Parts: sequence; C-alpha cells; structure tokens
Amino acid sequence: MSENKWLSNQHIRINGQRLWDSLMSIAKIGATVKGGCNRQALTSLDKEGRDLFVSWAEKAGCSIKVDPMGNIIARRAGKFNDSPSVLTGSHLDTQPTGGKFDGVYGVLAGLEVIRTLNDNKVETEHPIEVVVWTNEEGARFSPAMIGSGVWSGEFSLVYGHSRVDKDGKSIREELDRINYLGSDDFIPNSVKAAFEVHIEQGPILESEDLQIGVLSGVQGMNWYDLIIEGQPCHAGPSPMESRKDPFMGLTIMMQKLYDMVAEFSPWSRLTFGDIKAEPGARNTVPERLIVAVDLRHPEQQILDEMEQRFFKIVQEGAEQFCLKSNIKEEWRSPAVKFDQQCVQAVRKSVDMLGYSNMDMVSGAGHDSVYVSKVAPTSMIFIPCENGLSHNEAENAKFEDVEAGCNVLLHAMLKQSYH
Amino acid sequence: MSENKWLSNQHIRINGQRLWDSLMSIAKIGATVKGGCNRQALTSLDKEGRDLFVSWAEKAGCSIKVDPMGNIIARRAGKFNDSPSVLTGSHLDTQPTGGKFDGVYGVLAGLEVIRTLNDNKVETEHPIEVVVWTNEEGARFSPAMIGSGVWSGEFSLVYGHSRVDKDGKSIREELDRINYLGSDDFIPNSVKAAFEVHIEQGPILESEDLQIGVLSGVQGMNWYDLIIEGQPCHAGPSPMESRKDPFMGLTIMMQKLYDMVAEFSPWSRLTFGDIKAEPGARNTVPERLIVAVDLRHPEQQILDEMEQRFFKIVQEGAEQFCLKSNIKEEWRSPAVKFDQQCVQAVRKSVDMLGYSNMDMVSGAGHDSVYVSKVAPTSMIFIPCENGLSHNEAENAKFEDVEAGCNVLLHAMLKQSYH
Repeated sequence: MSENKWLSNQHIRINGQRLWDSLMSIAKIGATVKGGCNRQALTSLDKEGRDLFVSWAEKAGCSIKVDPMGNIIARRAGKFNDSPSVLTGSHLDTQPTGGKFDGVYGVLAGLEVIRTLNDNKVETEHPIEVVVWTNEEGARFSPAMIGSGVWSGEFSLVYGHSRVDKDGKSIREELDRINYLGSDDFIPNSVKAAFEVHIEQGPILESEDLQIGVLSGVQGMNWYDLIIEGQPCHAGPSPMESRKDPFMGLTIMMQKLYDMVAEFSPWSRLTFGDIKAEPGARNTVPERLIVAVDLRHPEQQILDEMEQRFFKIVQEGAEQFCLKSNIKEEWRSPAVKFDQQCVQAVRKSVDMLGYSNMDMVSGAGHDSVYVSKVAPTSMIFIPCENGLSHNEAENAKFEDVEAGCNVLLHAMLKQSYH
Repeated sequence: MSENKWLSNQHIRINGQRLWDSLMSIAKIGATVKGGCNRQALTSLDKEGRDLFVSWAEKAGCSIKVDPMGNIIARRAGKFNDSPSVLTGSHLDTQPTGGKFDGVYGVLAGLEVIRTLNDNKVETEHPIEVVVWTNEEGARFSPAMIGSGVWSGEFSLVYGHSRVDKDGKSIREELDRINYLGSDDFIPNSVKAAFEVHIEQGPILESEDLQIGVLSGVQGMNWYDLIIEGQPCHAGPSPMESRKDPFMGLTIMMQKLYDMVAEFSPWSRLTFGDIKAEPGARNTVPERLIVAVDLRHPEQQILDEMEQRFFKIVQEGAEQFCLKSNIKEEWRSPAVKFDQQCVQAVRKSVDMLGYSNMDMVSGAGHDSVYVSKVAPTSMIFIPCENGLSHNEAENAKFEDVEAGCNVLLHAMLKQSYH
C-alpha cells in the first residue's frame, strides 16, 4: 500500500542548483579567507545563519518551533497532522576552522526536500520536520551534540543550559542573547523515522569511487589513558639491560596492538592521539608515559573483544620489561545499530535512483547517535574531497550533494505514508 | 726511579673517618629534610661550603688561589715548586634535590690526600693541587661544568661571567657577592696530571659487587630531535591501511633502534627522554611526533656507526609508512679517552691496594671532560647505592669512600715524582 504511494513519486528529483546556492549563501556567514567557515554555536554569526534558515523555511510554508535548547524545528504539515513526523536534521554550527558542508548540508538538504515536495505538490501523510540541532560541534561548548543530547534525554535541560564557553558564557545566556531560547515542546516519541545526510568526513567513498554510503550504524568508541611506569635513570651510566624504560614497553605494546587491530579489519580503528613523558628530560629515562588511546569498532561484541586483547597486550608488555601499567577508562560510546526499516528505506531509495553505493558505518559521532536512542533512525553519507573535514579545505562535489539529497527525499517519502 | 719513590710510600693510607666526618660536616650546609643537599652554585650556602673548605685547606697548610671564574685552588708545595702540579678536583655545588656525595666527595678526598701527606710528612716533587670547580651541576646556571670549561678554554671568560640564573643574576655578579670573584691566574699547562674521584651515579659497580672503577674515558654523546610527520585524520572514519600515522613509524623505528643498540652492548646507550604529539587530540591521528633521542657510546667510531644506523632505520621506517622524517642534531660531545699514563697510575694503585675493580667509562659528564682537553687526566669511580644520584637518597658506603680516596692518594703520588 505505502509502497505504491511511494512508487507513485519516484520520478521526483530535488533541485540540485537551488540546494547548492543555499549552501553557498549560508557559507558566506562566517566565511574564512581560506574558503572555510567559522560560525560557532550561539555566536552572532550562528544567529545570522539560523535566521536565514528560518526565513527560507517560512517562505517554504513551514511552521517554526524553537525548543528550550534552541533546537529549531521547521514543520511541513502532512495529511494526518497528529501522526508522528518523519524528521531530518543536522547542525549549522561549525568548528573554528570548519568547512561549508559539515552539518549545514544535512539541514539544507532537509529544506530542499520540503521545497521539492512543494514544487511537486506532494501531500505526505506524516508531517515532515527539519531540525537544526544546537551545538553539535562541541567546539564552543562541551560536550558535543548537546542539543540532540538533551532532546533525547541523554542530558538534562539544566545540564545543557549550564554548559559554558571559555569566557564563562552559558548556553542559556547565549540562547537568550541571540533570541533562540524557545519554549516550544519538542517530543521525541512523536517521531516515526529520522534521517540525516552528511559528508563522510573520511576517505572511503572517495577512494572506492562511490556516491552514497548507506549507514547501518555508528562505531562503538572507547577512550583510555594508558599509563606505563618505569624507573627514571640517567641516560649515560645506566646499562640498557637493567633499565625499566617505559618506551621499551610502549614499543612492544604498540606493535602488538596494531597487529591485533589488523585482525579485525577493515572496520577496526586504533588511534594514539596524544602522549606525554614524565619528567620529560632528554637525558633521563622517563618515569612515566601517558598515552591517549582511541579504540573503535562498529560491532560492540568485537569492540569488547578488542578491549580484552588490549588489556592483555598491555599487561604482558609491562611484565616483559618489569614495568607497571594502568589503563584508565576515560569515556565509552557503545556501538549504535540504526533502525532496520530506516536503513531499508535508504537502501531502497539508492537502488531506485541507481547511485553507486556501499553499506558502511559512521566512524564519527553525529546528532543521529542521540536521535537513534529514542526514534527509528538512519544516515546517508556522500564523499568529501580527500576525506577532509573539520578543515577549511573541506569540499564536496555538486553531483554528490545532489545525489545525497535525492536519497534523503525518497527515504523520507518512503516513511511518510501509513 | 720514580717507581721506587712511589713504592716507598705504599704503606700509607688515608684516614677514612676524617674524610667521612668532613663529608658529613659539609652535608649540613643546605641539608634537606629527606637527607640530601640543596647547595646550588654561588648561593650563600655554596659560599658557606667554600669558606669551610678554604679554612680546612689553610689549616692543612695549603696556599689558596681563586681564579676569575671562582675556581678555588688549594696548593700543597712540592720539592720543585716550578714543576707542573698534580691536580685533583671536583665540585661543591649540588642539584636542587642533590645528595651528599656527588662532587663534594672528590673535593674532600683531595683534601684528605693532602692531610694524609702531611700526617706522613711526605714531600712530593711536584706540587699537589685540589680544585673546587664552579657550577659543575648546571642546575642554577647553564651550561654545566662552566668553571672547568672556561679554565680549559672551551668557553671564554666573558661567556662564563655572563651566564644568568632564572632571576637574571649573572655568574660574575654572584661571584662578586659571595666574595669569590678572584684575580689569580690558573694555568692549564702547569698541570702534569689530573685525577677526579667520584661516585659512579650508575648501578654497574654495585651490581658487579666491585669497589673501584678504573675509568678509561667518557662516553661520546649525541642528542637529536627526531621529527616524524604524517597526515592528521579523524580517529573514526579513517581506515587503518590508508593512514599516515607517525606512531606506526615510531613503533617500527623504536623496535629496530633498540635492537641495533643491543648489537653494541654493553656500553651502548639509547634513551628516548621526551616526546610530543601535535596537535595532540585524542581522536586525531597526530600530524607530527617530536622525540628527544640520546645516543651514547665510549668509542667514537662505534658511536658514529650507531648514528649512521640510526639515520637509516629512521629513513626506512618513515618510508615504510609513507611518513616524512627529519633528524635535528641538538648537541654532541665526542668520546673522551683519558690519558694512558694517568689511567695506568690509577690501575697500578688499585692493584697495589688490592681492591676489587673493573675498567669502565663514565656515562655522565664531569669536570674531568674539560680538564682532559688540556691536561693528562683520568678518573676513579666508587659504587653508589642503587645507582642513585641527583637524588636526596644518594648514598655511598664508608669503606668504598675510603677505598676510592686511597686509590686517589696513590695515583697522585705515583705522578708526583720526576
């Protein structure tokens, strides 16, 4: 039944040029000399971007709500307005040296879906909603994804409001200042299906020469501080064999950890992002190394196994060189499996449209991680140039931007009928 | 001839208790609660220590000179006073958390040699000199060993005088303040032979259960900054195989470097004392690692070979992971070979005295490194507890302190006849 309704609209395509022009218009707000964007959350520039989005959405016939976290909901009515909505959303805030596509593409693709439905006089049964989530980047206020986090119940509103930037200004204060401290309800259980289209922020689609990533979930991520303790001694007199040198332990640990993670390729990830030596004097064997470790896999069970192997490798490496080791767990985000129906809607749309594609998982966090905790959710990726993101050189091709939005359109349409 | 003169005094022994008491007396000046010493160069406490030494030396019949770098020379006349002197010396200054033996032992052992010669009414042909070198530690003023460095011509007097502490006070200013800005000449070419007895500051003699180290030289030391550059990327989306991760390069380099250095054991040394990751974010593969490398060997030719192998290993490791590498040379101190006659004098004395001993090289720098550039020189080591030095827990055994001083006495006596 709903399949037929969906198929009746299969000829519809979004207006790629209109979407591109919208992207380039918002990119002027906070544009940097290197061609990127600096439009951090709840700044006056962010307000300018939000106002422009709201004006466009209103022109497209949407009603606008703003919730107490400043999340903006632009709604296109459906045939049955008490039915839960089919939602898409992303963010308009950027990193200090951010690009023109990260987040803003997902928001404007949602707006383009509504504009396209208007052009084609399509009446959906469920309402369509496009959301601008507050402070996804976490660059100005920590933690990241706080808008969708409060909405999904991951964080309390009090917590969300009380986050401060480095100058001590709170989210609540800044929402008030830019006139986005809303009072509208925004209820997670009124969502039938949620989608988000985003640039990949990685090199996989580009290197495989594919246009669309059909996301099945988000990697589980574990963060640790690995601490290796030895005995400081003078670089000159102390024979190598008698040393308790944390670097000797680290060398064997890293080698075995890289090997172990390779066993779980292609989706396993191991990153040593930072390291510190104490006392850190050139002619003294360090007493202590502190290494930041980031371990990821999309399958929680495999991530758990990798974690156990990590613990064992560290313990054995420390014992081999008479060192002490300690692994401090800093943060963990379990693997997310997206909703099967939503994933299926994306897959069917891609197949129907004929774009080259692959199934994949997201390696980075997105608002959809929190949204998926309370609503059926999935995501769509398009390639970005050289896999670059959080970078002023961030770039995407016109035809990929267009293709991703067409997939979004038809995935949303598919879920928008009873 | 001189051998016979030397053998006529072979029954003489120093007074171990007197030496120990002198050590413990000076240790009260700047004593720390943890049992160590904080008597940094040219402080009022250093002046107190110097004054006490001078009063003891004068009581022992020495004439005192102070040169423009504040080096103190206590001289016991010989039969032929125009002959070059037989010299011993070390330093009275300590690290901020230093011990009771580092340096001060060498100075007071020299004084004890003079006291013993007096007790036994020995007239040497060459004069005997005991030197207190200024600012050996380099803890207050950089560089270390500046007193012996200026004396030997390694640094100019203007350079030596102009070194400032962290409060901006210069060596000249502080020498003047504590009344040790001398004007006496002190001429390197008037030295026939120089000796220095010192605690090992390493664990070798203790672990071998030996009393005396007969030093043949000082390790050559090369300092480098190893810079490994990759491509920063997000810890999540970027597949392991496509990464340019400096840590992957470092892992293989360190493994091969430790293996290479082991080929040149037991005297080779490789120390990674410090490391920095840039940008140093947990969820980003670093763009750059900067590693402080310290490479040592007592044979200059082997050190040179180790350096070539180091360059090659780094280059190959970088190539293997598509990284860039750069090795910046920070400092080098060529290997020092002590004077054969002086080394022989120490060896003959140890054999005559019957102490257990081994030939070794110094892994750390000492005033004797600079002294050896202009005068025949060698050194004597005694064990220190757990190899600890530059540490308030630094300790040495009475019988080793005594033994080292007896070796010094007879080595100096051996060179003190025509």
